[in-house]
Amino acid sequence: METFEGIRFRRGDLSIFIESLFEQAGADRDSAAAVARAVVDASARAFDTHGVRLVPHYLETLEQGRINRRPQMTFTRAAPAIGHVDADDGFGHPASYRAIDEGIAMASKTGIAAVAVGRSSHHGATGCYTIEAARRGFAAIGMTHADAILVPHDGIKAFYGTNPLSFSVPVEGEDPLLLDMATSSIPLNRIFLRRATGTLLPPEVAVDENGVMTTDPNHATAVLPLGGLTYGYKGAGLACMIDLLCSAFTGMAHGYLAPLFAGPNFTTPTRLGHFFILLKPDLFQPLDAFNERVTSMLGDLRSQPAHPGHRVMAPGDPEKAEMPNREARGIPMDPVTWQALREAAARHNVQEPKPVGGATD
Amino acid sequence: METFEGIRFRRGDLSIFIESLFEQAGADRDSAAAVARAVVDASARAFDTHGVRLVPHYLETLEQGRINRRPQMTFTRAAPAIGHVDADDGFGHPASYRAIDEGIAMASKTGIAAVAVGRSSHHGATGCYTIEAARRGFAAIGMTHADAILVPHDGIKAFYGTNPLSFSVPVEGEDPLLLDMATSSIPLNRIFLRRATGTLLPPEVAVDENGVMTTDPNHATAVLPLGGLTYGYKGAGLACMIDLLCSAFTGMAHGYLAPLFAGPNFTTPTRLGHFFILLKPDLFQPLDAFNERVTSMLGDLRSQPAHPGHRVMAPGDPEKAEMPNREARGIPMDPVTWQALREAAARHNVQEPKPVGGATD
Repeated sequence: METFEGIRFRRGDLSIFIESLFEQAGADRDSAAAVARAVVDASARAFDTHGVRLVPHYLETLEQGRINRRPQMTFTRAAPAIGHVDADDGFGHPASYRAIDEGIAMASKTGIAAVAVGRSSHHGATGCYTIEAARRGFAAIGMTHADAILVPHDGIKAFYGTNPLSFSVPVEGEDPLLLDMATSSIPLNRIFLRRATGTLLPPEVAVDENGVMTTDPNHATAVLPLGGLTYGYKGAGLACMIDLLCSAFTGMAHGYLAPLFAGPNFTTPTRLGHFFILLKPDLFQPLDAFNERVTSMLGDLRSQPAHPGHRVMAPGDPEKAEMPNREARGIPMDPVTWQALREAAARHNVQEPKPVGGATD
Repeated sequence: METFEGIRFRRGDLSIFIESLFEQAGADRDSAAAVARAVVDASARAFDTHGVRLVPHYLETLEQGRINRRPQMTFTRAAPAIGHVDADDGFGHPASYRAIDEGIAMASKTGIAAVAVGRSSHHGATGCYTIEAARRGFAAIGMTHADAILVPHDGIKAFYGTNPLSFSVPVEGEDPLLLDMATSSIPLNRIFLRRATGTLLPPEVAVDENGVMTTDPNHATAVLPLGGLTYGYKGAGLACMIDLLCSAFTGMAHGYLAPLFAGPNFTTPTRLGHFFILLKPDLFQPLDAFNERVTSMLGDLRSQPAHPGHRVMAPGDPEKAEMPNREARGIPMDPVTWQALREAAARHNVQEPKPVGGATD
């Protein structure tokens, strides 16, 4: 997790602002609300790569036609414990929240349920949806495939998306545990960031246009799977599993065939799939016993000896530690995103939110 | 995948021999048959780390009392799509095959099902069970936790097991796709093997007794998570997810509290848990469309450009390529395992199998 200083905003102000932006840009009320909910939730949880900085991108895809502004989303229950959300080429966010709602409804009776989402688009941080399930007492596994940016093991050309895997589970007396990880070592954004800061990339995380490993961010064009040059078949294996669950099970094509996230084509729907599995813990074990096991495991983990200056943490702990700071001081925004949002606000005639502690100029 | 030459045996001969060994050592018929089935299947699929070389270890745990020789295994359906196998401290193999059977029976109607296995023991290669489901037309996700051998990110002491994750899915016209990966870069066995061969380990895969990274196999005592020193929080995150699903959901303690696989205590039951998720593809999508998507994705993947002398492969492809060789020439056994099995055969009065092409002396 990398955090940063920047102009800060109250969570509520940011939500209203972003929701208004999408509505003024033509999105229906449900879509606007879901996108705002997801990106503000991600930013509040210090998951900045998938937070408010994605808003300008989402606005562009909405304005240029990649995204259906008024999707007629449908849910079909195919069997007692599985169902399919057709996102009708709308944003992936409302479709993914819907998947969690429907999955919870089914798993409440069946113990486990799966929802395959098709005809969808980028849905931000997959963890937004799994943690939402955990806040409501369910465990969840979530994943999405994406356009080609990750080079398969031994390959020289991008084939997989960074295809993240997320897992969340309720923890008594604290926020849910949340694992939310790409199957590459770094996101593509890290390359762009390092170009801007002029610093080298670590070895074995990125390749140049010939598929050769490079640490020079100016030459890097794609990322390597988790595990690097030697063990990357494991990260690529996870990416493969996720691509299959999000394509063959959702009725979509595999990620390699999807239009690129970053354009230049922002007019064709991406037709991506997501896959969610919901579990009701207290149908597996008595709730007290379940809670005790989770708490005991996390207690043992967090008290393990560590290298000097470090602590052993559970997935999501670094972000959890930053959350109170953001609640107290507001959600930070980097200058590039803020500039883009001000332009969008002017374009769509939406009032800018007031930053914490004063004016923006 | 590393393969090797060695004394070779016909699959059928090896199965009969191993089953007899376990029966003569006191295991009931079902347990003996399930262990033999799993280890021979793993060896036939060139998954040698979890194949017949584990038989001497399993015999020791049976002889010394860690394993219940005549378990009264039970299955309880807790809700329409979930159930629990109580392995009664027997081998993990019959319990895991049972989990697949019960999971398939449930998922046939509900579309997805989960089976949590508790009071179990080491079950060999998790992929033995997920691929068995795929051979019967189902997709499966399988996992097991294990005793502490993997150092958590930033930690200096083993906490997680190597906690493998497996995924298998039917592929029309060929063997199922099988991903079966530990959440460490290397298995503990690799350290022992490198001690024997006197070769260094790669960097960032193992640590010494102080938790400091080492490439010297003689100093290495535990393994690092997939992702190494920088991105190991991802491998450790997967290990954490698997530990929780295999403990809190199965009613078992987390892996850190389990007796060590390698002993010296071989008398106390390990009380491990496994977790399986079964999916019925043709309830998600029409079977033809599903098969076409899987085949099209694998076709595109396997035809991707690669580094000179390499090929881009799908999970399990290296093992798949070796299978016909083993079918034709027999299953190879390393000399150390063969010596141990001959001693066990003498001890339990079981006739040795005849190697392919002649006598063993």
